[in-house]
Amino acid sequence: MTFAEIVAPDADAAAAARERQQSLTKPPGSLGRLEELSVWVAACQGACPPRQFERARVVVFAGDHGVAAAAGVSAYPPEVTAQMVVNIDAGGAAVNTLAAVAGAGVRVVDVAVDCDQPLTPAIGAHKVRRSSANLAVEDPLTADEARAAVEAGRRIADEEVDAGADLLIAGDMGIGNTTAAATLVAVITGTEPVAVIGRGTGIDDAGWMRKTTAVRNAMYRARHDADDPMRLLARCAGADLAAMAGFCAQAAARRTPLLLDGVVVTAAALVADQLAPGARQWWRAGHRSTEPAHTLALARLELEPIVDLQMRLGEGTGALVALSIVRAAVATLASMATFGEASVSNPNS
Amino acid sequence: MTFAEIVAPDADAAAAARERQQSLTKPPGSLGRLEELSVWVAACQGACPPRQFERARVVVFAGDHGVAAAAGVSAYPPEVTAQMVVNIDAGGAAVNTLAAVAGAGVRVVDVAVDCDQPLTPAIGAHKVRRSSANLAVEDPLTADEARAAVEAGRRIADEEVDAGADLLIAGDMGIGNTTAAATLVAVITGTEPVAVIGRGTGIDDAGWMRKTTAVRNAMYRARHDADDPMRLLARCAGADLAAMAGFCAQAAARRTPLLLDGVVVTAAALVADQLAPGARQWWRAGHRSTEPAHTLALARLELEPIVDLQMRLGEGTGALVALSIVRAAVATLASMATFGEASVSNPNS
Repeated sequence: MTFAEIVAPDADAAAAARERQQSLTKPPGSLGRLEELSVWVAACQGACPPRQFERARVVVFAGDHGVAAAAGVSAYPPEVTAQMVVNIDAGGAAVNTLAAVAGAGVRVVDVAVDCDQPLTPAIGAHKVRRSSANLAVEDPLTADEARAAVEAGRRIADEEVDAGADLLIAGDMGIGNTTAAATLVAVITGTEPVAVIGRGTGIDDAGWMRKTTAVRNAMYRARHDADDPMRLLARCAGADLAAMAGFCAQAAARRTPLLLDGVVVTAAALVADQLAPGARQWWRAGHRSTEPAHTLALARLELEPIVDLQMRLGEGTGALVALSIVRAAVATLASMATFGEASVSNPNS
Repeated sequence: MTFAEIVAPDADAAAAARERQQSLTKPPGSLGRLEELSVWVAACQGACPPRQFERARVVVFAGDHGVAAAAGVSAYPPEVTAQMVVNIDAGGAAVNTLAAVAGAGVRVVDVAVDCDQPLTPAIGAHKVRRSSANLAVEDPLTADEARAAVEAGRRIADEEVDAGADLLIAGDMGIGNTTAAATLVAVITGTEPVAVIGRGTGIDDAGWMRKTTAVRNAMYRARHDADDPMRLLARCAGADLAAMAGFCAQAAARRTPLLLDGVVVTAAALVADQLAPGARQWWRAGHRSTEPAHTLALARLELEPIVDLQMRLGEGTGALVALSIVRAAVATLASMATFGEASVSNPNS
């Protein structure tokens, strides 16, 4: 799998944005992180002032994980993945509500849901397989499946950008997917399993121990693969995470800004930045979740989350809460009056 | 000054909101602070599910401070206060842009701007005086002026609620106002001046020392008044902060939820909770600013800010960024499907 070389966001637009921030009617720096975010958007768009997002899109990558059925690592039964695909398609999930508030469109894709047939042909258009194998005992994907999944994510990003998306968010839905995510983060960051594993949807102590055992087994298989992203995806991820990795990498290749969500997307993003070095320049971290592996992954990517609201839901929900703040950042840079325009005295000029 | 007894937000609606959160299609607790915020709004409205805010309003309290002209405690000259009132009225300030993003209306009131006449009769309808006296050397207000200012804030809250406001935000605009705010916080929390004083709009070391001296002098005059809110306002606040205190207290008396902004509003809120004990139950902290006194004031009010974006602008801007998140919280509780409605398996039921 090769991605187009990642081009950095536009340094000239960033410089113009920084200069314009200094001219707006407020003390320099007083908008804090809103200023940094506005500069990033300007750089991604190659334009100052930046345009407000007109087609922000969340893609929710749904997939089951054999480890959930076999090892009891989740508080929910595996059939919830397929049920939630129905719920998202019907507009009843948290991602739908928060997307409506933030002004984003929602698309759910069945990458590897364990069901007889996809909910609709469109939702299943990029399906790779039924579930992923149990990472506690075997590689969840073959090498071919890992490639197919990354390719699916890349195609989905292309479809969205070709349709006019100007901001992308990846979301996750899959019982057991935090087990795969924790494994990826543990291998890539060289962290002990006990330090990466959280409570996911809310497991008890016995479930936490089963999850830790599963992660340890997968880590052992992948112990020599920390720098080989495609092997890592096959050995300890799953088709949904592999597709997210392809999606995050291709967003950067297509020069489209992307907001990361929680631990599952961010784990996939760690792999995406290996697949397409420098891709992370096109990303910002929407939120910090309560999952310990998330904080480790964000630190590795050197991304500081925009909000910390103790969320741990996935689906893209944390990124959607942050989207409102990124919109606010864009609006200040695009719409505020300058000292000159407003005839306000400026001792800093 | 007496305010109507503060009634707590509706415990039954809060209980119903907590129960409904458990029935929504997500793991219990996984929306983190959004859940707590949704419960608070339901309690304030006395209704579950809560209604989305239809008339959120920011009132920016503008006032000058003699200390700014006399002691050089700000990076900006005093005339900026009046110039910014013009800018806000024209829609060019940060508060205007962020209010548009968050779906709120903006009103600016001239409580004590140092100008010949208010920008418009409406903006000056509640004017108390021209500037407040230099707190470094004398009480900034007489007892009568302090009463008039608190009364002005109370009337403004009444006007807004009578006109249908269902969420209020207080904002500040006034060169020198963080000096008054820091003094209030220092006296009420019993903190040394050096621990409360930040850089405000961006002063240098010499300005910081002048600001510290001014605060110390005002603290000395008010050393016996920590529990006497009206005397405190007269001795070390200013008409704008006194009006904000009246506004925050009356919002609670009128059972209207309010989001606190930065250090100036939160300092006034400390006094408001003395004027109307229990008022803080009707407030949430929008953000944490970089001003050290803000963190002290929030801790005293036992309020945890919703966002921390390193902002330090005032005007209500931090609260407006948080408003989008409170809207998201309301939307989840009001609009998400339940497990039953969506036919999703729920092992927690």
